[in-house]
Amino acid sequence: MAIQFTVRFHDGAARVGVLTTPHGEVSTPCFMPVGTRASVKGVTPDQLRSVGARIILGNTYHLTLRPGDDIIRDLGGLHRFMGWNGPILTDSGGFQVFSLADLRQMSDQGVVFRSHVDGQILELTPEKAVQIQENLGSDIAMCLDECPPGDATPEKLRDAVRRSILWAERCRDAHRRPDQALFGIVQGGLDLDLRRTCAEQLAVLDFPGYALGGFSVGESPEQMHAALPACASFLPADKPRYLMGVGRPEDILVAVESGIDMFDCVLPTRNGRNASAFTRSGSLRLRNACHRRDSRPLEEDCPCYTCQHFSRAYLHHLFQVEEMLGPTLLSIHNLAYYLRLMEALRDAIREQRLASFRETWFRTSTADQDR
Amino acid sequence: MAIQFTVRFHDGAARVGVLTTPHGEVSTPCFMPVGTRASVKGVTPDQLRSVGARIILGNTYHLTLRPGDDIIRDLGGLHRFMGWNGPILTDSGGFQVFSLADLRQMSDQGVVFRSHVDGQILELTPEKAVQIQENLGSDIAMCLDECPPGDATPEKLRDAVRRSILWAERCRDAHRRPDQALFGIVQGGLDLDLRRTCAEQLAVLDFPGYALGGFSVGESPEQMHAALPACASFLPADKPRYLMGVGRPEDILVAVESGIDMFDCVLPTRNGRNASAFTRSGSLRLRNACHRRDSRPLEEDCPCYTCQHFSRAYLHHLFQVEEMLGPTLLSIHNLAYYLRLMEALRDAIREQRLASFRETWFRTSTADQDR
Repeated sequence: MAIQFTVRFHDGAARVGVLTTPHGEVSTPCFMPVGTRASVKGVTPDQLRSVGARIILGNTYHLTLRPGDDIIRDLGGLHRFMGWNGPILTDSGGFQVFSLADLRQMSDQGVVFRSHVDGQILELTPEKAVQIQENLGSDIAMCLDECPPGDATPEKLRDAVRRSILWAERCRDAHRRPDQALFGIVQGGLDLDLRRTCAEQLAVLDFPGYALGGFSVGESPEQMHAALPACASFLPADKPRYLMGVGRPEDILVAVESGIDMFDCVLPTRNGRNASAFTRSGSLRLRNACHRRDSRPLEEDCPCYTCQHFSRAYLHHLFQVEEMLGPTLLSIHNLAYYLRLMEALRDAIREQRLASFRETWFRTSTADQDR
Repeated sequence: MAIQFTVRFHDGAARVGVLTTPHGEVSTPCFMPVGTRASVKGVTPDQLRSVGARIILGNTYHLTLRPGDDIIRDLGGLHRFMGWNGPILTDSGGFQVFSLADLRQMSDQGVVFRSHVDGQILELTPEKAVQIQENLGSDIAMCLDECPPGDATPEKLRDAVRRSILWAERCRDAHRRPDQALFGIVQGGLDLDLRRTCAEQLAVLDFPGYALGGFSVGESPEQMHAALPACASFLPADKPRYLMGVGRPEDILVAVESGIDMFDCVLPTRNGRNASAFTRSGSLRLRNACHRRDSRPLEEDCPCYTCQHFSRAYLHHLFQVEEMLGPTLLSIHNLAYYLRLMEALRDAIREQRLASFRETWFRTSTADQDR
C-alpha cells in the first residue's frame, strides 16, 4: 500500500488521524497549499515548511501543458522538480479542463479540449489522467471525474455520476505505480441520494481514499454546510476523506465537524496576493489607508515570519508601491493562518472540545479590523 | 564616532578592512544589495542574510515620497520598518532627482522637482537631504551632490563640483545624529584634475568616509576603469571609499584593485527579475529553450538556496509560466554570486594573490553557457 491511514481520536463525526505516505507522515485534518504550476505562488518550499505545511497539491492540467509531465518525469518527478520533499497530491486535471480550457467534445471515452495556453487540441481520458499523474509521481493521485456546474439539471447530474463511476473503474484498472495511492471522487451535487449511490459504488472499487468533488461550484455556503455531514458519512470511515477545493475557514470548520480529513484551497495565497489577510478577528485589507502608521503585526500572537518581523504599516507600504515582497509576506501569513487553524482543530478534537471551537477561534472583537 | 574603519590587509592598492557601524561589523570590500523602496526586490531579510549580505542600501528619494521619512521615523526608523537589523546606507536622493524626477529648477540653494509618483512639487536642499536621512536612521548617510550627466561640458562639470563641495559643507553643518556617519561625494567626471581638487577640498571637511559619484553615467567601462586608480588614490587612505552604483563583476574587480571598499548596484536583482543569471562561466538566460530539460543547478559549486534545491529546467519553467518564484530564486542566486565574489576578493587580498584573481574567478570554459 502506498499510503496508510489511521484514525487516532474522535470528537463526534470529526476525527484526528495520521496519513502515512512515501514522502512522510501528515496529521489530519490537514490543509494542502496549492502549487498549481509546480510552485505555491510567491513562497519557497522552505517558507512553506516553516509555516507548517506538510503536504501540498499540484495541478495536473497546468503541469501537463507546461512544462509537460514527460519533462517532470525525466527530471526525477514533481518532488525533485519543485524542491518539495514532503507529500504531494495531484488532481486529475478534469476540473481545470471543465473550468479553464475550451471544451470541445465529451463522451464516455474522455474529453477533448483546446489548451488555454497555446490553443492545442488535447484529449484527456481516465487512462491518460492516470498516466500523467504517474509521470508526475505524486504520493496521491485522483481519478478523472466529470465535474458538472452547480446549476446542472438532475439528469445532467445523474449522468455525471454515472460517467465518474465508469471513469473511476478505468482509472483503477490503469493505475500501476505501487508508490502512489489513487483516490476516488464522489460527485452528485446537492442530491444526497445521488451522493450516497456514488459513494457506495465507488466503495466497491476499494480505493485507499475518497474525495467529495463538486462543492464550491456555485451553491451557497449554507447549502454546502447542510449537505456535508451526510456526504461525509457516506464515505468509508477507515479511509481518508478529502473535500476538494474548499474553502473558507468557516467551511473547513463545518467540514471537519462532518468528518472530513483533507482540504485544499487557493484562498490563502490568492487573498495574500490581493493584499487581504486572514486573522482570527476577521480579514484585513492591507491597501486601506488605516494601516499607514500601524506598528502592529497582522496578528499579535501569530508565530509566522511576517508577523514576527513586519508591521501592518510596512505591509501597507509594500502594496502601495507594488513591491513583490508584499504578496509573498501576506501569502506566508495566510498559509500560516490556515495551518494554525488545522492544528487548533486537531487539538480540539483530541481534547473533545470541538463543539466550542468556533467561539474560541473566531474573535468577536472588531477592535483591530479595518476601519 | 558613528563608524570606525580599520584596514587590515593590503595587496597593491587594494585593501581588506573592517567597517564597524551601530548595526554591526562589515568586512570590506563589501557589496550592498539595493533596497530602493525599503525592500530588496523579491527577497526577504532572512534570505538576504543567508546569501551573505551584511549591509544594504536604501534610496532616500523613493522613501521620502512613499511612505514618507516621517512615517518611517515614527515607526522606529528604516531598520525596524523593513525588518533588517544590519547596517544600512542611504543615498541623498540627489541622483534620483536628476534621473527620475522632472527637474524644475536648480540653484545653489537646492533643487526643485516634480515627483514622478504624484506630480507634487518638492524641494531638496542639503539640509533637507540630511534631515530626511536622519529620519530614516541609516548607519551611513550621503551628502547631497550635483550629478551631471556623462556628456556634461567641462564648464558644467566644474560648476557641479563647486556646488557639490558647497552642499557637502552645508550637509556637514546640518548633520546632528551621533549614531549616523555622513559621507562626502567626489564628483568631476573623467577629469582627473577636477576629481583631485574635489577630493582635496572635501578632505578638509573631514568626513568619516568618501564616495566617488558620477561613474556609470554614460562613459565607457574602459574610461571608468582607466580613471579609477587615480580617483581612488585621491581619497584619504584611512577612510572607507565607496564607488556609487557600480557595477558589473568586472567593474568591481578593477575598482577593488584601485582601492575601493564599498559597492552597490541593482544588477543582481534586476537581472534576476529578467531571467538572467550571473555565473563564473558567463551569464545564463533562463528563458532560453536550451534549459528546458537541464537538471543542473545554475552553478555546480554555488551554496545558495537556489542552486542547492532547483535545476535550470525548473527555473526555466518558472519564467515560462511567469511564476513570482522565478525572479525571487534568481535574485537570490545573483546576490549570492556577488557576495561570494566579494568574499573571494577579500581572501585574495589577504593572501596577496589579487593579481591572478581574474583567471581563477572567471572561468574561460563556455561548456555550460547558453547555446
